[in-house]
Amino acid sequence: MQATPASDDHSDAERAHRFRDFQRIRAFSEQLCEHLVIEDYGLQTVVEASPPKWHLAHVSWFYETFLLRPLLPGYRVFHPRFEYLFNSYYEQTGSGFWPRPERGLLSRPTVAEVYDYRHHIDAAMARLIADCPASDWPTVEQRLRIGLNHEQQHQELLITDIKRHFAHNPLRPAYRADLPSSPIGEPDPLQWLSFDGGLGEIGAASGTGDFSYDNEHPRHRVFLEPFALADRPITNGEYLEFIADGGYEKTALWLSDGWATVRQHGWRAPLYWEEQDGDWRIMTLAGMRPLNPAEPVCHVSYYEADAFATWSGKRLPTEAEWELVATAHPVAGNFVDGGWLHPRPAAAGDGPRQLFGDVWEWTGSAYLPYPGYRAAPGALGEYNGKFMCNQMVLRGGSCATSREHARATYRNFFYPQERWQFKGFRLAESRS
Amino acid sequence: MQATPASDDHSDAERAHRFRDFQRIRAFSEQLCEHLVIEDYGLQTVVEASPPKWHLAHVSWFYETFLLRPLLPGYRVFHPRFEYLFNSYYEQTGSGFWPRPERGLLSRPTVAEVYDYRHHIDAAMARLIADCPASDWPTVEQRLRIGLNHEQQHQELLITDIKRHFAHNPLRPAYRADLPSSPIGEPDPLQWLSFDGGLGEIGAASGTGDFSYDNEHPRHRVFLEPFALADRPITNGEYLEFIADGGYEKTALWLSDGWATVRQHGWRAPLYWEEQDGDWRIMTLAGMRPLNPAEPVCHVSYYEADAFATWSGKRLPTEAEWELVATAHPVAGNFVDGGWLHPRPAAAGDGPRQLFGDVWEWTGSAYLPYPGYRAAPGALGEYNGKFMCNQMVLRGGSCATSREHARATYRNFFYPQERWQFKGFRLAESRS
Amino acid sequence: MQATPASDDHSDAERAHRFRDFQRIRAFSEQLCEHLVIEDYGLQTVVEASPPKWHLAHVSWFYETFLLRPLLPGYRVFHPRFEYLFNSYYEQTGSGFWPRPERGLLSRPTVAEVYDYRHHIDAAMARLIADCPASDWPTVEQRLRIGLNHEQQHQELLITDIKRHFAHNPLRPAYRADLPSSPIGEPDPLQWLSFDGGLGEIGAASGTGDFSYDNEHPRHRVFLEPFALADRPITNGEYLEFIADGGYEKTALWLSDGWATVRQHGWRAPLYWEEQDGDWRIMTLAGMRPLNPAEPVCHVSYYEADAFATWSGKRLPTEAEWELVATAHPVAGNFVDGGWLHPRPAAAGDGPRQLFGDVWEWTGSAYLPYPGYRAAPGALGEYNGKFMCNQMVLRGGSCATSREHARATYRNFFYPQERWQFKGFRLAESRS
Amino acid sequence: MQATPASDDHSDAERAHRFRDFQRIRAFSEQLCEHLVIEDYGLQTVVEASPPKWHLAHVSWFYETFLLRPLLPGYRVFHPRFEYLFNSYYEQTGSGFWPRPERGLLSRPTVAEVYDYRHHIDAAMARLIADCPASDWPTVEQRLRIGLNHEQQHQELLITDIKRHFAHNPLRPAYRADLPSSPIGEPDPLQWLSFDGGLGEIGAASGTGDFSYDNEHPRHRVFLEPFALADRPITNGEYLEFIADGGYEKTALWLSDGWATVRQHGWRAPLYWEEQDGDWRIMTLAGMRPLNPAEPVCHVSYYEADAFATWSGKRLPTEAEWELVATAHPVAGNFVDGGWLHPRPAAAGDGPRQLFGDVWEWTGSAYLPYPGYRAAPGALGEYNGKFMCNQMVLRGGSCATSREHARATYRNFFYPQERWQFKGFRLAESRS
Repeated sequence: MQATPASDDHSDAERAHRFRDFQRIRAFSEQLCEHLVIEDYGLQTVVEASPPKWHLAHVSWFYETFLLRPLLPGYRVFHPRFEYLFNSYYEQTGSGFWPRPERGLLSRPTVAEVYDYRHHIDAAMARLIADCPASDWPTVEQRLRIGLNHEQQHQELLITDIKRHFAHNPLRPAYRADLPSSPIGEPDPLQWLSFDGGLGEIGAASGTGDFSYDNEHPRHRVFLEPFALADRPITNGEYLEFIADGGYEKTALWLSDGWATVRQHGWRAPLYWEEQDGDWRIMTLAGMRPLNPAEPVCHVSYYEADAFATWSGKRLPTEAEWELVATAHPVAGNFVDGGWLHPRPAAAGDGPRQLFGDVWEWTGSAYLPYPGYRAAPGALGEYNGKFMCNQMVLRGGSCATSREHARATYRNFFYPQERWQFKGFRLAESRS
Repeated sequence: MQATPASDDHSDAERAHRFRDFQRIRAFSEQLCEHLVIEDYGLQTVVEASPPKWHLAHVSWFYETFLLRPLLPGYRVFHPRFEYLFNSYYEQTGSGFWPRPERGLLSRPTVAEVYDYRHHIDAAMARLIADCPASDWPTVEQRLRIGLNHEQQHQELLITDIKRHFAHNPLRPAYRADLPSSPIGEPDPLQWLSFDGGLGEIGAASGTGDFSYDNEHPRHRVFLEPFALADRPITNGEYLEFIADGGYEKTALWLSDGWATVRQHGWRAPLYWEEQDGDWRIMTLAGMRPLNPAEPVCHVSYYEADAFATWSGKRLPTEAEWELVATAHPVAGNFVDGGWLHPRPAAAGDGPRQLFGDVWEWTGSAYLPYPGYRAAPGALGEYNGKFMCNQMVLRGGSCATSREHARATYRNFFYPQERWQFKGFRLAESRS
Repeated sequence: MQATPASDDHSDAERAHRFRDFQRIRAFSEQLCEHLVIEDYGLQTVVEASPPKWHLAHVSWFYETFLLRPLLPGYRVFHPRFEYLFNSYYEQTGSGFWPRPERGLLSRPTVAEVYDYRHHIDAAMARLIADCPASDWPTVEQRLRIGLNHEQQHQELLITDIKRHFAHNPLRPAYRADLPSSPIGEPDPLQWLSFDGGLGEIGAASGTGDFSYDNEHPRHRVFLEPFALADRPITNGEYLEFIADGGYEKTALWLSDGWATVRQHGWRAPLYWEEQDGDWRIMTLAGMRPLNPAEPVCHVSYYEADAFATWSGKRLPTEAEWELVATAHPVAGNFVDGGWLHPRPAAAGDGPRQLFGDVWEWTGSAYLPYPGYRAAPGALGEYNGKFMCNQMVLRGGSCATSREHARATYRNFFYPQERWQFKGFRLAESRS
Repeated sequence: MQATPASDDHSDAERAHRFRDFQRIRAFSEQLCEHLVIEDYGLQTVVEASPPKWHLAHVSWFYETFLLRPLLPGYRVFHPRFEYLFNSYYEQTGSGFWPRPERGLLSRPTVAEVYDYRHHIDAAMARLIADCPASDWPTVEQRLRIGLNHEQQHQELLITDIKRHFAHNPLRPAYRADLPSSPIGEPDPLQWLSFDGGLGEIGAASGTGDFSYDNEHPRHRVFLEPFALADRPITNGEYLEFIADGGYEKTALWLSDGWATVRQHGWRAPLYWEEQDGDWRIMTLAGMRPLNPAEPVCHVSYYEADAFATWSGKRLPTEAEWELVATAHPVAGNFVDGGWLHPRPAAAGDGPRQLFGDVWEWTGSAYLPYPGYRAAPGALGEYNGKFMCNQMVLRGGSCATSREHARATYRNFFYPQERWQFKGFRLAESRS
């Protein structure tokens, strides 16, 4: 019997290509942390936002668990307890996991040890990518691509979590004091774009070679009634009018669970907004800055987006409406790659603006399986499927998302009360 | 200028008709309470299940608030604090409301005083229905119909809440020891019914004169992929197989929030199931009874329904799939009118069985507004619209529902963890 | 061998005497409930205040558990689950107990059934008292006396708990609208009484035939420095000055745990005080009444008593100081027997006033065992001993206490934050 | 009028003496931290245990607040927000304080910045000690001595808190792997020492020049009945017998609040004990070690100490009993100065052993004011007085206490459920 050759010409190029991706994406995680001091790496100020150190380790655990342990012969784990410490929520790997609310309670392993862990994984992944048998390559490649997308998701979380942690500190430290800022101005007028609806298709197509998550499948038909979509997201200036009109006091504007949340937490404005002597300032990754009315409103919950829409006599778009519009436009905008790390005012232009980047846009769609959806078997099947309840879909990506991670079919999802991501919204209305 | 006559011949008949409905439905609430002792009327064993006394008063408050105070000149309120005590959750009436978790903490007003309140309302309603100006009649009639449907909803809650309260008592008292029971048997085989899907219409049509809630509107088109639907709900016998196969221990079967719920509450079986020496018994409105494998499984959460479906390799139907099938069938089945107050084994037959009655069926659809939905203005607009988040749709009605209250377009909704209603489920699958 | 005769002449008189006590005390529990409607019997508005029905049953359970089951041959329990339902906290009886926070969640047994239970116990107790062998009589008598004192304690709780439950109702119903009230006036001046201290003895003497609880034993020597004691408790009028001076806002006046409690609950005044347009009214067993400055302040926590004392530059007395003064005075005052059910203004007079009755007086002593204290063996030993931690001693009895239940050596105890008993305080100071 | 000279010969020596104390004690805090990595400084794994960084800053804040700001002219605060961040609980300083449960949520100021803060304080204190006017010196000296004792208390907390934080980490890291350990052995027999009791004096005498806290004053007379005291604390070996005899399952042994705590937390052994395959190991500052039966049992709550005493048929000593015995013996033992950082087996000997050092000993006395106690005026009066409720007194010092910080009159106090200090206990019994 003949051994399977480790590679052939075709896959050599593929392997080289994927390895460059791997190196680039792995390096970016560490670049994001260059602006931290060691004390910052362990912070967990709220349950949902993890410490930077945990993110750095967890994304490495992902490769170790789904690639190195099953597929690299002779692979030696870096530390026997790390599979327990850095598993997030995968029940089927069998290791259990350290409780999420206590991720910030571990001073050891140290930051240096976590970087050692990363480099251990990097070296092993280099061997796996270069040397795995050709018969394994499709599996390796598929899981590697999931792993890289997974790491990009955690890069976004790293940014949003750092912002959350720093905003909790009464000193309001800056992650990067040198970030650029947009000139303060007023929003330009919002335009409405009309669409006929009818029968359309949404979801990611299979077999194209482009990456997509299982929750974007299968591509399927939907019927839409005629609708209109705002050409850009709602801005801080417009949101200030909602506040000034008593938006947070008028129970009639709110969903029942939303109103309960407003009262429980005493919400008076989006997360990170602070009023002092009648002036609003907001916490950014560059520290406190004056509120810019021209920027998209950001860090709002679904409840706030919905209440604003009700106040406006409009509604949020469904994810199908959003996708059918967005699919006709290129994936371009204010992503993490541009280095602003903050939403920017919409540039003038016709047609829909800021569909991609700046802020994730809450839709009025619950996060549910598409017709015919099947989760992958095994622990990787827990990636998306088990969250299909109680969460709402967001679309488009934000200023903290990697451009290559965004696409028209991408379904992000969060609980309706969550605000710490870069989340805004765009209005829609039914036309009949 | 000529006074509007109080009625004309046409509306006289309508008024008489509605008044008979009013009398009949009001009387039924009190008939349901004939099996209670005074001590039972004040019970609130869990936050979500209200005391019988509160239900009796609240449905009366509804007529007082939306009909008598605005529309009956000279109406004298029965007690000035009752608008505060017996408002449920209507923020816009301005009275505020006694906290829901504390409804069981009020010994006064007494049961007798609550009945006096009811009779005071009854007398005033009789006057309003008989004597209101013809120009008011359309408003009176519309609100009266809502009020009567509202009372029917609370009749169902009265039954389910009493069951909840009695099951909390270690003596497991019977609400009615004289209820009939079905012979214990095995479920007959489950059959699959195939449907082509395509473009269909769901929702209640306007202008038919039939009653429907705002959340059933507007009627609109949906596109469905081909699917199959089980001909009957899942039974206790089938659910026992799920339990026996370790269903409650296999994390891979569960939604993430569902698994957290299972662990938090230590769920091992549906609500009201009790195991003793290997035998399952269940709490019913007639007290403890042996589990009947042939009956539809009941008192399960959405999480349990979804986990069972995953275990079966199937899924729950969407509400559109359910409605498009159900709309072709008459509204008949085991309703409260039949007096069983418990689900019964499916009768043999072709085509879908038990679509209506027996158990509410969890669907895989989140409770969201239909395209073009608009809530009514004012406090009545809070009836349905403000709950359109975090809840799942159930269809079909149960053994505690009035037959005339059920219809194919009816959308019931509950939080996914709630189990105290008569809730079961039917499986579906995608066919492509 | 000769049978022990059931009684002799001496014990015949004793038995008759105790049986009269039994009948009188049992009847008084039921008299207290004559002012209730059936709905009131099941109320538990806060965890620490039990439903009247529970009190009626629990005191009966006490006789059943400690007298009838062990000592009356052939005794048939009234209901096999009542030992579980109506045990309060005795771990060693082996039955377990229904959770205290859920005592209000049981509509069954009904009120009528609980009275049947009482009468069943009464009849069996009559047999036991009349017919038990002479050799058992000392045990029977000793436990009977504990049982009767126990029932008297629960009579006081019945009153204070009903007040608590009714105050929770926004209708503020009256337990008895016909209670007398004292003329509104100003408090007469407070006088200070000086004592030399020195070596004294406190605690109940053994072998006198008078009833006392184990926690009053053994009588023992204490050394006291010279001190002074106020001649009467602090009044509402004086307490109003404390409030007016910002007592509830000045953190420096409060114990650390007290301040945390004030902020957690938003305390601004004693329990049952309500301010409306600058006037204070208080909830009483006769419903809402204007505050009477001349009455002793009531329903304050230890924290409030201590803060008031700090504000006054004084302190609370120790229990030894209180007892050494009180022991020289007769047990007379405003007890439940007088039928006021509310504290009254102090009558003019020399020497200490209101030591007994009106309000329990917080002392500065923690509830701890006296030197040489031993709890009784078995479940009865749980009566007092296991609570000797985290509670403070109160002395003197209140307007809800039976006169014959009060004595100078009596040690009552509650957690420092508890306010629903009739609790006030008297100031002391050190003299050196 | 003549200026007060900055010093005279007498105070020059005093100033030099106090400055050497200051330097030595300040240095010791930093020496304790030499074994930490930067990540460790920010840990707060439980609310009651603060981060090392916070301790280092808070003790510096104490000098700044009570000495430098009021008494050093021209003193410039290091950072305007530090008075808010590093105040512990002093309400009267006016700055408020960062919430205690969130001390671990601040990555900034960094560890380096906190050390800068310390050095800023050190330099200013050197100026104040050297140059303050002679008229200020008594105040400076008195507050300085409080400040130094305060820092020593926090040195002990630093050690106990680090142990708590490291024990929370599943890797069980060692604070110092190089700590010595005692040979494993069996405890030598416990001896009982008898005392006559009678009238005695406890508390710190005034005017001796020795340091004491306000809560040790005034010295006063107490009367004690005859008693006996164990010659050494209870050991691990003896405590194992309690466990083996079902100590944690026998409700009759426990105080009511203690039993509730045992069940709530699932306690089966002292804090830091871990059983594996029948062998007990304990977490120490050197990491996990086998349990040594000869060492004093440590890290027990008051509830456990009391339950053990009940099981033994004994009791805990009162603080007066302990002090009257201890006052006759030199303050010598296993203190932090010896560098063991762990309790050691008692050395053979006559008379009481290990009164000082090794483990704090729970007494049966509630922490209450001595007769005639007055708290100091102003914020410093909050140091001890406001905690005189709900806590129990401990005596003698531990292996984490500085030898010069211990004395016979010293009153330590903790809540009865707290276990993370080095706490053990010694038995007593009444002799009559």
